[in-house]
Amino acid sequence: MFPVRGVQVTQVRPADPVTIPAAPGAAAGLAGARIVALDCYDVRFPTSLEHDGSDAMNPDPDYSAAYAILRTDAEGLEGHALCFTIGRGNEVMVTAIAALRRHVVGRRVEDIAGDLGAFSAALIGDSQLRWLGPEKGVMHMAIGAVVNAAWDLAAKIAGKPVWRLLADMTPEQIVALVDFRYLSDALTPAEAMDILRAARAGREERIAELERFGHPAYTTTPGWIGYSDEKLVSLSRQAVADGFTQIKLKVGADLPDDVRRMALAREAVGPDIRIAVDANQRWGVGQATDAIAALAPWDPYWVEEPTSPDEILGLAVIHDAIAPVKIAVGEHVANRVIFKQILQAGGADVLTIDACRVAGVNENVAILLLAAKYGVAVCPHAGGVGLCEMVQHLAMFDFVAVAATHKDRVLEYVDHLHEHFTDPVRVTGGRYLAPTAPGFSAELRPESLRAYEFPHGAVWQELAGTANQ
Amino acid sequence: MFPVRGVQVTQVRPADPVTIPAAPGAAAGLAGARIVALDCYDVRFPTSLEHDGSDAMNPDPDYSAAYAILRTDAEGLEGHALCFTIGRGNEVMVTAIAALRRHVVGRRVEDIAGDLGAFSAALIGDSQLRWLGPEKGVMHMAIGAVVNAAWDLAAKIAGKPVWRLLADMTPEQIVALVDFRYLSDALTPAEAMDILRAARAGREERIAELERFGHPAYTTTPGWIGYSDEKLVSLSRQAVADGFTQIKLKVGADLPDDVRRMALAREAVGPDIRIAVDANQRWGVGQATDAIAALAPWDPYWVEEPTSPDEILGLAVIHDAIAPVKIAVGEHVANRVIFKQILQAGGADVLTIDACRVAGVNENVAILLLAAKYGVAVCPHAGGVGLCEMVQHLAMFDFVAVAATHKDRVLEYVDHLHEHFTDPVRVTGGRYLAPTAPGFSAELRPESLRAYEFPHGAVWQELAGTANQ
Repeated sequence: MFPVRGVQVTQVRPADPVTIPAAPGAAAGLAGARIVALDCYDVRFPTSLEHDGSDAMNPDPDYSAAYAILRTDAEGLEGHALCFTIGRGNEVMVTAIAALRRHVVGRRVEDIAGDLGAFSAALIGDSQLRWLGPEKGVMHMAIGAVVNAAWDLAAKIAGKPVWRLLADMTPEQIVALVDFRYLSDALTPAEAMDILRAARAGREERIAELERFGHPAYTTTPGWIGYSDEKLVSLSRQAVADGFTQIKLKVGADLPDDVRRMALAREAVGPDIRIAVDANQRWGVGQATDAIAALAPWDPYWVEEPTSPDEILGLAVIHDAIAPVKIAVGEHVANRVIFKQILQAGGADVLTIDACRVAGVNENVAILLLAAKYGVAVCPHAGGVGLCEMVQHLAMFDFVAVAATHKDRVLEYVDHLHEHFTDPVRVTGGRYLAPTAPGFSAELRPESLRAYEFPHGAVWQELAGTANQ
Repeated sequence: MFPVRGVQVTQVRPADPVTIPAAPGAAAGLAGARIVALDCYDVRFPTSLEHDGSDAMNPDPDYSAAYAILRTDAEGLEGHALCFTIGRGNEVMVTAIAALRRHVVGRRVEDIAGDLGAFSAALIGDSQLRWLGPEKGVMHMAIGAVVNAAWDLAAKIAGKPVWRLLADMTPEQIVALVDFRYLSDALTPAEAMDILRAARAGREERIAELERFGHPAYTTTPGWIGYSDEKLVSLSRQAVADGFTQIKLKVGADLPDDVRRMALAREAVGPDIRIAVDANQRWGVGQATDAIAALAPWDPYWVEEPTSPDEILGLAVIHDAIAPVKIAVGEHVANRVIFKQILQAGGADVLTIDACRVAGVNENVAILLLAAKYGVAVCPHAGGVGLCEMVQHLAMFDFVAVAATHKDRVLEYVDHLHEHFTDPVRVTGGRYLAPTAPGFSAELRPESLRAYEFPHGAVWQELAGTANQ
């Protein structure tokens, strides 16, 4: 028990203590290697102490990771991934990841890494676990964590970062990753093949560009709702000085506050920097339309999550009412079926996919293909802990092999918690540099895993001690 | 660990051993009473051994309950409810229910039972837990279990069954139960008031009718996909003999099989009995249309879950293509926002609400009001374990106080596992008799709770022993 929070948490503890992962990448000794464990860890960072990450719906997040490691009997070979949460309930995610052990433990590494489409389908197809969604919420995100850990494993075996592993696949191999059930009325496998084949042109040049200049980013750092006006203004100016051409403000708690903060930010960055606003689902359809009209004089570029992430028809109504302000949605959109319909209804101009919300790389590939079919830009959601590290791979794959352009495509960046990763993102001049290390960049440093494990890690023990004094 | 299944399950164990609940209903000594514990149990029934409950998506369900008890310091006063699952993953639900302890333990019983709208809103509004949905999947269903347990508590205090507690509320009190966020573009509080006020006419007569004759039912018992043709035919004939006017067949695994079974069932029951078919989400939009056309010669009454439960636009397409065959959806529809849009799009003729999928009684009241606004019949989903016991209360409240009619409204019935409840459903002559005992009818018999607790109960220990021999 951790008295500061006052919650009686039932911990799902790994069978063995936290061990320092060996250096990754060794494909040697792989023949016949098997998965021997799926270890799960409850890792939490006390970010609510600083109001980092505060928005209208989430006033006090403690950025957290339900962290999964696929351990193998090949020396030094492990697959790491995480599911992001904002604190309480992280133990529920951990239990859900543990429920997937039967699908991985004892399986041959080559069988999983060699057919990630079948692996993903087997997890999603578990009929008893499917009842808990289907394909949404805790169980779906847990599947995403395990699928992503398998991608980390596959990329380490291949000796490539995930973006490059994906980009080097043939169109046939990419289409085989996707579950087309419930999609075919919007996107057929043949249409997906056409999109991927068309994007072969210029592929090598785009890889070279990416390796040299990276991928454009925007920053949410200035705009958290718990920050003072002074902090908002100074961080907005800093963002421009750092080379960003787009920033984002959190809105939706109080309209007069939103208008004041929007005006301050516009004054701070000048007319040429794009300002996105993010309502984090606070409004109904009518409220959203009214609120955006009030912000319009300061030229918002997009409004993100104006209403429920399950809203399709209402999104189309808002879309028509607020044009030319764009609508961006995605970080809480549960699965490819809802994304499909948002595109069919014309409810969004920008899809803000998240690495950890849907069932991993495979489902996000489906969503990238849907976006390309409908001509909508993908600007991934990031921030939290590990989201930047993971989703950069998807944005770069999109640039090389699907959308084949950077036009209007920016990748969110928040400068929190990167120091805890073995292969942190590198953002400079407003751009993400392309990762070069093999894997999915989601591996926590072993000392961070130990220190922030909840509630037994040193950081949490210290906070508990402080609270008890 | 339970060796038959080969899954390493992490159990969330209640702090104290299973105790025999005292007789409910005592409001005496309530002044100042507090919730002292939220106990959670993993209860599973090995139904897959008999193929009971088998369908195209769920070939081998073990009907299970994540079972919640709100314990109080008032003697004999407890609130019981459950969330239904089909086996694996039930431990995830149990962990999710446990995550809600901070919202109940230590609170005054009167504060919760006296304002169930505020109680429901507080659980749904937990910003950190909300990230795990929002309002869908494991965390949302867990909230449903706790909200329903609070309704059981409130009804026991009132000395009424839940249906009657609801039916005796004023329109104002009922509207105060509902969260109108994301609903107001389809249903305003004022419109809800109008619906409820209009249904005051004839209320006493409908209560009398319900108490005398009960609520019409239909049966799914004949139609499980794992049953032989002979069993299908004999159970179909038996259903008619038992007084049912509608049966349901599971379809969607193999179309020639579906056609043969539909023809056999139609021959068995004759032309005047309604036959519903249930595809349990197996089809895409085009497949659904084709399959229903193949079954049309045998006059299916409704097709249930033709495709993904997240499908709104596609459902409207199927709806127009298959008329006059009706579409029924709901048991897997995640929340009121998706229900709202299905109604707005004209995608369903029948809503098959479930007592345990959404966030409990309060959200189901919202869905009943939406259905009334759009003139669509509610025919609740039941079966499993405990679903009939709970959802009958919602159907009866709908009849008395919202829809105010039985026309085309039937309540699913399956004759499994009722013997495990202290207040089991009573179905006779094709009708559910109205419950009279105070509460929500979801209380398991203490000996069943002990015997079926997974994996330590006697039944599971015996199965494990058999498997090891």
